[in-house]
Amino acid sequence: MNALTVQIYDTTLRDGMQGEGVSLSLAGKISIARRLDEFGVDYIEGGYAASNPKDMEFFREIRRKNLKRARVAAFGSTRRAHTRVGEDHGTKQLLAAQTAVVTIFGKSWRLHVRDVLRTTENENLAMIRDTVAYLKQRGRQVIYDAEHFFDGYKDSPAYAMATLRSALEAGADCLVLCDTRGGGLPHEIADITRAVVKALAAPVGIHCHNDGELAVANSLEAVRAGARQVQGTINGYGERCGNASLCAIIPNLVLKLSRACRCQDNLKELMDLSRFVDDALNLPHGRQAAYVGESAFAHKAGMHANAVEKNPRSFEHVPPETVGNERRILISELSGSSNILLKAIEMGETLSKSSPEIRDVLNKLEQLEKKGYQFESADASFKIMIQKILKRHKPFFGLEGYRVIVEKRGKHEPCLAEATIKVKVGHEIEHTAAEGDGPINALDNALRRALTRFYPAIAKVVLTDFRVRILDPEEATAAKTRVIIESSDGKDTWGTVGVSGNIIEACWEALVDSVEYKLFKDEQPAAKPKLLKRPAKRRA
Amino acid sequence: MNALTVQIYDTTLRDGMQGEGVSLSLAGKISIARRLDEFGVDYIEGGYAASNPKDMEFFREIRRKNLKRARVAAFGSTRRAHTRVGEDHGTKQLLAAQTAVVTIFGKSWRLHVRDVLRTTENENLAMIRDTVAYLKQRGRQVIYDAEHFFDGYKDSPAYAMATLRSALEAGADCLVLCDTRGGGLPHEIADITRAVVKALAAPVGIHCHNDGELAVANSLEAVRAGARQVQGTINGYGERCGNASLCAIIPNLVLKLSRACRCQDNLKELMDLSRFVDDALNLPHGRQAAYVGESAFAHKAGMHANAVEKNPRSFEHVPPETVGNERRILISELSGSSNILLKAIEMGETLSKSSPEIRDVLNKLEQLEKKGYQFESADASFKIMIQKILKRHKPFFGLEGYRVIVEKRGKHEPCLAEATIKVKVGHEIEHTAAEGDGPINALDNALRRALTRFYPAIAKVVLTDFRVRILDPEEATAAKTRVIIESSDGKDTWGTVGVSGNIIEACWEALVDSVEYKLFKDEQPAAKPKLLKRPAKRRA
Repeated sequence: MNALTVQIYDTTLRDGMQGEGVSLSLAGKISIARRLDEFGVDYIEGGYAASNPKDMEFFREIRRKNLKRARVAAFGSTRRAHTRVGEDHGTKQLLAAQTAVVTIFGKSWRLHVRDVLRTTENENLAMIRDTVAYLKQRGRQVIYDAEHFFDGYKDSPAYAMATLRSALEAGADCLVLCDTRGGGLPHEIADITRAVVKALAAPVGIHCHNDGELAVANSLEAVRAGARQVQGTINGYGERCGNASLCAIIPNLVLKLSRACRCQDNLKELMDLSRFVDDALNLPHGRQAAYVGESAFAHKAGMHANAVEKNPRSFEHVPPETVGNERRILISELSGSSNILLKAIEMGETLSKSSPEIRDVLNKLEQLEKKGYQFESADASFKIMIQKILKRHKPFFGLEGYRVIVEKRGKHEPCLAEATIKVKVGHEIEHTAAEGDGPINALDNALRRALTRFYPAIAKVVLTDFRVRILDPEEATAAKTRVIIESSDGKDTWGTVGVSGNIIEACWEALVDSVEYKLFKDEQPAAKPKLLKRPAKRRA
Repeated sequence: MNALTVQIYDTTLRDGMQGEGVSLSLAGKISIARRLDEFGVDYIEGGYAASNPKDMEFFREIRRKNLKRARVAAFGSTRRAHTRVGEDHGTKQLLAAQTAVVTIFGKSWRLHVRDVLRTTENENLAMIRDTVAYLKQRGRQVIYDAEHFFDGYKDSPAYAMATLRSALEAGADCLVLCDTRGGGLPHEIADITRAVVKALAAPVGIHCHNDGELAVANSLEAVRAGARQVQGTINGYGERCGNASLCAIIPNLVLKLSRACRCQDNLKELMDLSRFVDDALNLPHGRQAAYVGESAFAHKAGMHANAVEKNPRSFEHVPPETVGNERRILISELSGSSNILLKAIEMGETLSKSSPEIRDVLNKLEQLEKKGYQFESADASFKIMIQKILKRHKPFFGLEGYRVIVEKRGKHEPCLAEATIKVKVGHEIEHTAAEGDGPINALDNALRRALTRFYPAIAKVVLTDFRVRILDPEEATAAKTRVIIESSDGKDTWGTVGVSGNIIEACWEALVDSVEYKLFKDEQPAAKPKLLKRPAKRRA
């Protein structure tokens, strides 16, 4: 291992699972492990061998998957106090996991030895020594996680160092210094790591938590002080404020600190990896996340958008494509007229910066934003608004009325949803009905059924994303709702928005915009598809 | 100003507004400014004087509010190139804002001078000098934001320092070093800040962005290197990845670095301030946020919950109440049986850790979590589930059926919602109907109307929060939906959950649990209200 190479140790599947709202099926864990392997992390901590039958199933399954590069680690603790290690349940489970690597944590801080383990300082040293030695004798690579190392060191450097020496003398392959409470400061982490690296001839790792919003900085400072392994999770999932986010650490190491990581050639896959894990966890993507957030390279202020046009380096610390992200120019009341102009030109309009319509669009935008509309991921609704202001809007159909009925006939009966709809196209009336999985799905189905006779292209449109946001939650069930829909016809993808106190009406608005945008788009031979910005995929 | 005192400069109302999805009405800006003043920040940057009429209105309004301690700053730039400063539009607007403080930014980086301003290095120095001098002559306190200072310094220390000297010689009261692209590393920020503090006899400030997830660390390192003012935003709102979060910086300064801040006596208000700003922006609260997130002191792993019971310091870097937060013990499949036991005991059940029912609860919990249920903020639904497993559940009413109708009669007609409901209490049937602002509100109203005759206490229950989460957004309008409702009767607050492919049915489940929990609770004279954990207020 080159001195400037840093090993990436992913613990999304173990420490990440302790995050609030985070859980995964076995299949989900396997799919994330395979993805991490493809990305090129060095270690994948698969779970806590003794805590959870699902984790043991994971270890069984993953053995059959023949990962390409990553080594799988089972996680556990040192033996219990005053137990023979060969008879310790946790240690048995660790071996039963049959992984090449085992990672065990032990106590570094006297407070924990006294108050949590309730044993003696010497017994704790023996627990570390016995467990590491036992696992080494059975052929495992042993990574020793020195839990609460920094707090322990601040309390008693001598005792904290004694715990590390116990692990090292028993054969541990790597000593990982953990800031388990997550409260350490960068200079403390740097100083203490440096002292350990200097004192011990052993590979040292770092494991930080984010309770002071410093986990990424603390991890980098530890690397600068000599740590050669960084433990963290994708997107920073983890207990309390989370673990150190590998999605920020890896690009910082590679692009800023010039360290080598085995995954560095796949850096362009970083944003996809981040989203893949969010999707598997069914959690929203962190919009503001460094490097991988949708907003990470989004420019809203007119002046910044303008500067980026002149030279992207002016407001971008790295090129967005380095990490698989992309630049976005946002529309909002802070937008300069140049942002609006750009959208109008995309639509084939011939306006200039001084056209009075630009001011009309900005005014309308401000009004709608006050009502709760947002166009940042509803580009198609924004363009339809521009058409309306330019008096270029062509309604493709008229609504005569709709009715949605949801009915349940008894506690254990299914809940049925049906929508009827009456639309007018030219002089023709179409009156039809459809069922659905819920009221919104039923209305969506009915609208498509009604229009497909006139506009067969509608049949190709599928809704690819659907987001509901309660705008004033304290109004409870009477709250105003914003619905954002993403649609696709296989070629393009577009976003639309609706806002109403009635969720059905909000969906209706977004559905109508989606259909009208599709029909408008198909009529434009001149529209350049490459200019149609792909709306951001997911958001909170 | 004591050398160890740090001034807090809030720019939520200016730089924060450049965040994606962030916007505020004038009233919203005023209410945040007043709250920041009460909290005790030193400066409130109210807006960009030249960019937005709303910001000018803000300056007019805020003058009448007589803030107690904070000074209001208007933000702007140095004059345009080759313009006389007295005739520069932006500079006129800055004066028109009539604030005691003006903050102007100027360019420190030759790349920006050349590619964005498209002027000469000397003219840029003159722009800085002229604008600062002109504003000083008109009696303003002038804070000089050295935009891109760190990137500029890395490119040319001599030129970057020359820009600072221009500002200082013209009378600037504070020189703020900005990491505008947000890509600097802690050690770079520390080294460069130290060099500036050493070279210039002037107060220095720091303004960081979070593009490397390092803004908090960078701000702290700058303070350790001698900076005496920190600029940031509440909750880290801001363009791209956001600004440095004052909600992490302030407690780190006060509790970890022993610096004095004028707001330090109000540290217990920090979480409320954080939520107040989220609420005003109508954005979800960052669950994992350091110090102020709902999860910041939430313990999920059984082992951690157990250790915290023995000694809270074992897994908490600061006491949660220091920043107005609170400890929470979470229920999930990772929960040990002791968490379940605790809930059962709260409900007056007499179980022990070895009772087989504990295992049944854990199994059921796992099944429901797989379906998309989450009980972390739906404590009441969790307790009702325990009752059902213990065969203690008493259904207070039976559902004979409901029907919800949403109807719209034409494009410009209002969208009406009506619900009918038939319930059975004992041998009596109640069949009634109600309208509402949308289908869910109508169903809620109908259910209350039907039950109030039998259970008058229901009339006192109000729904205080309502959250909808689409669980599989790629299924679009047929997606499964999770609804979480928070209810209150003025004395207690409780959360309930429902999951279904039909949003109405998901709401129904949560509404029924809410009503049943209220009635169950009222029947328990022994229930100790202090044990009823308040569910977290808002989440993403």
